[in-house]
Amino acid sequence: MDNFKFYSPTYFAFGKGEENNTGELVKRFGGKKALIHYGGGSAVKSGLIGRVKDSLEKAGIAYEELGGVKPNPRSGLVYEGIDLCRKEGIDFIVAVGGGSVIDSAKAIAAGTVYDGDFWDFYSGKRIEKALPVGTVLTIAAAGSEGSGDSVITNENGMFKRGASGDAIRPAFSILNPELTTTLPAYQTACGITDIMAHLMERYLTNTKDVVTTDRMIEGLMLAMIEEGPKVIKNLTDYDTRANIMWAGMMAHNNSCGVGRSQDWNSHNIEHELSTYYDCAHGAGLAVTFPAYLSYVYKHDLDRLSQWAVRVWGVEDNGDKEAMILEAIERYKAFLKEIGMPLTLSELGGKEEDIDTLARMACRGDGRDGNLYGFVKLSEDEVKDVYRKML
Amino acid sequence: MDNFKFYSPTYFAFGKGEENNTGELVKRFGGKKALIHYGGGSAVKSGLIGRVKDSLEKAGIAYEELGGVKPNPRSGLVYEGIDLCRKEGIDFIVAVGGGSVIDSAKAIAAGTVYDGDFWDFYSGKRIEKALPVGTVLTIAAAGSEGSGDSVITNENGMFKRGASGDAIRPAFSILNPELTTTLPAYQTACGITDIMAHLMERYLTNTKDVVTTDRMIEGLMLAMIEEGPKVIKNLTDYDTRANIMWAGMMAHNNSCGVGRSQDWNSHNIEHELSTYYDCAHGAGLAVTFPAYLSYVYKHDLDRLSQWAVRVWGVEDNGDKEAMILEAIERYKAFLKEIGMPLTLSELGGKEEDIDTLARMACRGDGRDGNLYGFVKLSEDEVKDVYRKML
Repeated sequence: MDNFKFYSPTYFAFGKGEENNTGELVKRFGGKKALIHYGGGSAVKSGLIGRVKDSLEKAGIAYEELGGVKPNPRSGLVYEGIDLCRKEGIDFIVAVGGGSVIDSAKAIAAGTVYDGDFWDFYSGKRIEKALPVGTVLTIAAAGSEGSGDSVITNENGMFKRGASGDAIRPAFSILNPELTTTLPAYQTACGITDIMAHLMERYLTNTKDVVTTDRMIEGLMLAMIEEGPKVIKNLTDYDTRANIMWAGMMAHNNSCGVGRSQDWNSHNIEHELSTYYDCAHGAGLAVTFPAYLSYVYKHDLDRLSQWAVRVWGVEDNGDKEAMILEAIERYKAFLKEIGMPLTLSELGGKEEDIDTLARMACRGDGRDGNLYGFVKLSEDEVKDVYRKML
Repeated sequence: MDNFKFYSPTYFAFGKGEENNTGELVKRFGGKKALIHYGGGSAVKSGLIGRVKDSLEKAGIAYEELGGVKPNPRSGLVYEGIDLCRKEGIDFIVAVGGGSVIDSAKAIAAGTVYDGDFWDFYSGKRIEKALPVGTVLTIAAAGSEGSGDSVITNENGMFKRGASGDAIRPAFSILNPELTTTLPAYQTACGITDIMAHLMERYLTNTKDVVTTDRMIEGLMLAMIEEGPKVIKNLTDYDTRANIMWAGMMAHNNSCGVGRSQDWNSHNIEHELSTYYDCAHGAGLAVTFPAYLSYVYKHDLDRLSQWAVRVWGVEDNGDKEAMILEAIERYKAFLKEIGMPLTLSELGGKEEDIDTLARMACRGDGRDGNLYGFVKLSEDEVKDVYRKML
């Protein structure tokens, strides 16, 4: 096992009605004037933003509002948020929404207290300081509610990049599964696919003898395989929503990813899909992951056949390649069952786009022409992965 | 799933040589004058206390020392520590050792800033305030390095009780698996048994539909079943020690126990064994747990047969009782393989002690004559559990 640091100081308030404690939590964590950051009108129409405002008012917290965060959140709104926070003397950001809103809030939080361009953090500079962020989560997917990560799309060139730092781990996160019961089946399935991807990316490691985190990751994957189809059949079931919500956090706060190398190539390959076709990130991952696995699995037959047996229940007949290919088929069947696309054309993609996609993934924003992960992939190899999605 | 709060703000530094960063971490978390708290001479002889002192000196942290913590730590030394901290103006406790040392340090940390008798916290008062505690862990077992719990034995009556509060979650914990490689086989096995018990106590729940935490707990148990016999055969293997060390923390920081009822009856029944016979807590648990399970399993055949199949690999033949009894036998075989006792007589116990043990467990320190958990047990039923250990 590799040396590591793990720090997850987020206070989680989980359960029915917890959003009504937003104001108390902002106060507990030192906020006096908050920015309520959110996406489209649904959070307003549902009454959620109203409940959050009531709660802030009761706790004596002043606030400003900034809505309009889109899926695959954009740099333009981040700049706007930073200006607003500085002008209004905001000292706390309350993100009400899913991963996109939270990631946008984290970018604003880091950018507000930074002298340079916030994009520096998305070009490799580690975030050391930020305003505190609290979240009221409405989608179980990205795990941003418990992570020190944020992904933003730069409108100047339309590439999607990530930033990290313990400073952007939320001070608190409110997880009320009730808030996710109105989410339509498609977005619910996108979330489940994202959670599965976060687990796979930690599972695909070159580090040996990591039994404890292996078993934890497998356990979380098994929970998603059980709960995923169940929630699609019964979108309003509280316990199923609750299981998925906690798994989404655990999949990405990194307690099951520590001490081992991780592989984020698939996320990097997907990011160009959601940027180029403006599809949901989860849908892009459903298309990417089986294609990616079928391209790289030969590099560690032991690891992937362990996954086949323990996660997908494939019988151990000694033929590791066949076992892995069967597991990838079961993974695809699972994604199809919950309503996810499996091919590039379902996202609106065409074979002639592949050169552009691979160039963006491998050379955009200063990359050196390769992707580095479980396996190093050249631009030509990345094209091969995209071709497997056809 | 039940509503819950989860807060684990401990900073974990995991890996080789991390104890040399103790001073930097005390500084980072605001300490100026530390109490180094430890057990017997082995931490001094091994050079570990020396390295911790060097590290404090390099960081400019003054310190006092208080050694002498015994397994099943006692209230007398806690009172001594509180006096010392007040007299010397200590503002940070560094616990160097296993769960006993850390639990003693937590009691001192809470007692120093409390006007009343620290035992109030061990009689049911929640800990809201304490000096910050940092730990340098030398035994993977109790999980105290990541928990908000502490267990102390009151020398006035010799009963063992627990206290809780987020205020005693460590500010930092240094987990260097190298420090555990000198631990003899017996203590190593006691630690594994304790970790398994912490998982079982969370698994035995009356809460329905908790798939995510079920799968996480099962994963951690599977890791212990794999790594336990491995480490006993090769005590110095770093990766095995590392897997057990992280599992010990994850088993008890409660991320896999949230939102579900838990059952601490077995710990309560065991506490009287380690107090009365002064045996290792883990050894007491090895004797207690299979006896306890064989007494209560009929109350939830579904849950226990799930455990039999998923954790112990028992074939699902539909006869749940037989499956569970087979799993309990496999659990006992596992404990025996790692060198644990299975009967009261191996701890030096006799049938005639049982009335006293049950009275202490059920009526000591203001208890009402029953134990409450997965199943409510009267004093007579607790006697029956003790009899199953004969």
